[in-house]
Amino acid sequence: MSKLRVLIWNEFVHENIHEKVKSIYPQGIHEKIKTELISCGSDFQISTATLEEPDHGLTDAVLSETDVLIWWGHMAHNKVEDTIAKKVQSRVLQGMGFIALHSAHFSKVFKLLMGTTCDLKYREAGEKERLWVCNPGHPITEGIDDCLEIDSTEMYGEPFDIPPPDEQVFISWFEGGEVFRSGNCWRRGNGKIFYFRPGHETYPIFHNKAVIQVIYNAIKWAAPQGLWLSSLAHVPVNQAREKIEDRGD
Amino acid sequence: MSKLRVLIWNEFVHENIHEKVKSIYPQGIHEKIKTELISCGSDFQISTATLEEPDHGLTDAVLSETDVLIWWGHMAHNKVEDTIAKKVQSRVLQGMGFIALHSAHFSKVFKLLMGTTCDLKYREAGEKERLWVCNPGHPITEGIDDCLEIDSTEMYGEPFDIPPPDEQVFISWFEGGEVFRSGNCWRRGNGKIFYFRPGHETYPIFHNKAVIQVIYNAIKWAAPQGLWLSSLAHVPVNQAREKIEDRGD
Amino acid sequence: MSKLRVLIWNEFVHENIHEKVKSIYPQGIHEKIKTELISCGSDFQISTATLEEPDHGLTDAVLSETDVLIWWGHMAHNKVEDTIAKKVQSRVLQGMGFIALHSAHFSKVFKLLMGTTCDLKYREAGEKERLWVCNPGHPITEGIDDCLEIDSTEMYGEPFDIPPPDEQVFISWFEGGEVFRSGNCWRRGNGKIFYFRPGHETYPIFHNKAVIQVIYNAIKWAAPQGLWLSSLAHVPVNQAREKIEDRGD
Amino acid sequence: MSKLRVLIWNEFVHENIHEKVKSIYPQGIHEKIKTELISCGSDFQISTATLEEPDHGLTDAVLSETDVLIWWGHMAHNKVEDTIAKKVQSRVLQGMGFIALHSAHFSKVFKLLMGTTCDLKYREAGEKERLWVCNPGHPITEGIDDCLEIDSTEMYGEPFDIPPPDEQVFISWFEGGEVFRSGNCWRRGNGKIFYFRPGHETYPIFHNKAVIQVIYNAIKWAAPQGLWLSSLAHVPVNQAREKIEDRGD
Repeated sequence: MSKLRVLIWNEFVHENIHEKVKSIYPQGIHEKIKTELISCGSDFQISTATLEEPDHGLTDAVLSETDVLIWWGHMAHNKVEDTIAKKVQSRVLQGMGFIALHSAHFSKVFKLLMGTTCDLKYREAGEKERLWVCNPGHPITEGIDDCLEIDSTEMYGEPFDIPPPDEQVFISWFEGGEVFRSGNCWRRGNGKIFYFRPGHETYPIFHNKAVIQVIYNAIKWAAPQGLWLSSLAHVPVNQAREKIEDRGD
Repeated sequence: MSKLRVLIWNEFVHENIHEKVKSIYPQGIHEKIKTELISCGSDFQISTATLEEPDHGLTDAVLSETDVLIWWGHMAHNKVEDTIAKKVQSRVLQGMGFIALHSAHFSKVFKLLMGTTCDLKYREAGEKERLWVCNPGHPITEGIDDCLEIDSTEMYGEPFDIPPPDEQVFISWFEGGEVFRSGNCWRRGNGKIFYFRPGHETYPIFHNKAVIQVIYNAIKWAAPQGLWLSSLAHVPVNQAREKIEDRGD
Repeated sequence: MSKLRVLIWNEFVHENIHEKVKSIYPQGIHEKIKTELISCGSDFQISTATLEEPDHGLTDAVLSETDVLIWWGHMAHNKVEDTIAKKVQSRVLQGMGFIALHSAHFSKVFKLLMGTTCDLKYREAGEKERLWVCNPGHPITEGIDDCLEIDSTEMYGEPFDIPPPDEQVFISWFEGGEVFRSGNCWRRGNGKIFYFRPGHETYPIFHNKAVIQVIYNAIKWAAPQGLWLSSLAHVPVNQAREKIEDRGD
Repeated sequence: MSKLRVLIWNEFVHENIHEKVKSIYPQGIHEKIKTELISCGSDFQISTATLEEPDHGLTDAVLSETDVLIWWGHMAHNKVEDTIAKKVQSRVLQGMGFIALHSAHFSKVFKLLMGTTCDLKYREAGEKERLWVCNPGHPITEGIDDCLEIDSTEMYGEPFDIPPPDEQVFISWFEGGEVFRSGNCWRRGNGKIFYFRPGHETYPIFHNKAVIQVIYNAIKWAAPQGLWLSSLAHVPVNQAREKIEDRGD
């Protein structure tokens, strides 16, 4: 079997304008995730793309050769072209896996796929988060014990305005008193979608081995298992499966 | 209890340019549905709106006073302004009911709410359709026997690219050999959505009492039961439910 | 419209053998819930039934006149007759609402309806619980702010082995660090099912007005909207909707 | 990777008492499915078991070494011991795949997993069935074109009283005018469940290569991806993730 082709997309803005973020992710969040995925022994063919590249690095050619797309964005969601966001949505519906990290809950692609506001509560106080496994045998939780702890992070709280997940993999507990559905699976068209909450830019979240393990697992889970190039299809009367007369006008 | 406020939206184009459609729906599909809903004894406060009105008749004031919006469109989906389609989506997520009829599977609002292509097969041969009730006790099927027959109509066939319905109310059988999920319920945000397949413009579908009965039932089912004005909400550290120190940067 | 007929079922064992429980619920948990529902101004016709009554108070006649059944049980789940548990399941599938409180996650009826183990984590330390509203416009949350707090209670924690809820209404945060899906809606057959976590016997949970408010709301939500007496139904060849020849053996 | 361990269970009664069934399946339906799966080039380790074996051939040892269980039963559902049916349910929840064929909609195991009546309509007239693919990219549809036709079979019709499937793979059209959800996926606990309608005993359904192809695909889809030995788990106060005092009684 050929290697899974993974594309890590990062808006790559914070890292250039915010000293603390730069110190945590000197080559950018995308490069850090790539490095960590490689060092955890994955056998993926990994590429990266960023906002400032032509077409945000998401040309038809690139998308047609991507099995799973990982998305990180925060302050520049609106700089993503609508046409490109829709093209990505379209590829997901055909079968490409899509993993939205943290603030990507507000990315154009994720919101297009969900159809809801994706609103939530938030607070940035460097508090503790604990993600509980809701289904211990799920492939996305492989290698994770009954929970995953992050010492210091931003809080996201319910209500999280999303369609009911097909599978609830993680729910988070926060030190300040909130909860959040933090690992959620959906299928849309032929594509698999995973939202994973961890990943704030001013905390070294992607230095956490357990977080990388979940992303690694999610990539394998989201891998396409077939392609569905859906279309509005006309069926002429003489090709109906049962013989019928045309009684239309 | 005050009356349910129902708004019937019709693009109202076919009826002006196509003689057969005009003969079946001289005042337009919207007026026919309104008349039928009234004559079946409903106690709704019914309004109508069409594409050519300013803001397509869907101003903020109108939407804020609508409980359930019925949508019919076919050849002019693209003439609906994106901003207005998004405003309607937004109202549905807050709690307004939304009923998409027939070719409204391709309306901007419905596609925004689903997040999928909403593609399907079709054929226009005036063939027979039989909608089977999948859940005989569901309020949307009240007054309908085990199925509902339409002598002559356009065919829609699977695959219908939609998210899995929360409730499957009807599935259609077609004379030419196809099947279709023709009565589908979803909740998104705080709103209830019903897709109902019958309704082609060149057949007198909305003259059919059973079709009107289902629309009547669906209006009552989709009525808002509360309002959720979701928003991205910041929770300051000193308003956290549990006392925490700000350890952020 | 006639009054909703609510039946509150309680195994009524703890109250007779445990002094602390007796002091909190001298007439039993069922009578306390009844009293509170009445005093919050509800317009229900409320009955009660307990384990020790003949047929556990759940005769065919009683069930046929019940719109919504509330269930509390803990230490005597196994004393409920299988045939009666199945009869209740059957009524729910026909349309009777079913509300399972707290330890009723392990009741025979709830487990039969879910089809899963309904296992969970637990700890009894009198800790704080905070139930967050996941969908603020949902009728079950009417009158509840963004969360509902219980000062001192038993903990239930994930993983909770249930089928994915159709609607997630509440998720709980616990002082000791766990989370739990504590307000869950399902539809099965024609019936609506609500699981609500609060209700431990050694804490005065049903003295809490907000808890009673949720139960009140859930009763209205779970009210049957029609009846479906499902059956295995033979369709003779000569009653097929389309004319066919019998080509069977 | 080691081979998938597939167990084909058949009640094996019809084949012994009904001449026509014996002529179509001289070694039994289980042996025919096994032979066909082997001849289509599958790389499974396939066993069989039948009702008359001790423990119906479903001992703890056998179940613990089964990855995917295929079930065929019709006239002897009630002869399956309740304890064994519950043991099988339990294994499915832990992660074993379960494929219910045709009349297994009424098997004890399937009904336990669904929690509903699983009632449906039926007619035996040797009529045509056409199963339409609802999601062309789904792994269970691999190698199947847009539909799968069976010339002569028993009819099953809606309403089919099941919980909403997580994924709708096939919907059937029948010559006599009915429709049926004939390929349905669910996840329960950690297990994957597929119901597939084809398979009546008096028609040579399992001689049909496309039917075997779907079963082959479904086995691969239902393969366990991990194990979840769920249990009711006590968390002592001193093992709480957050330090708490015991304030219980």
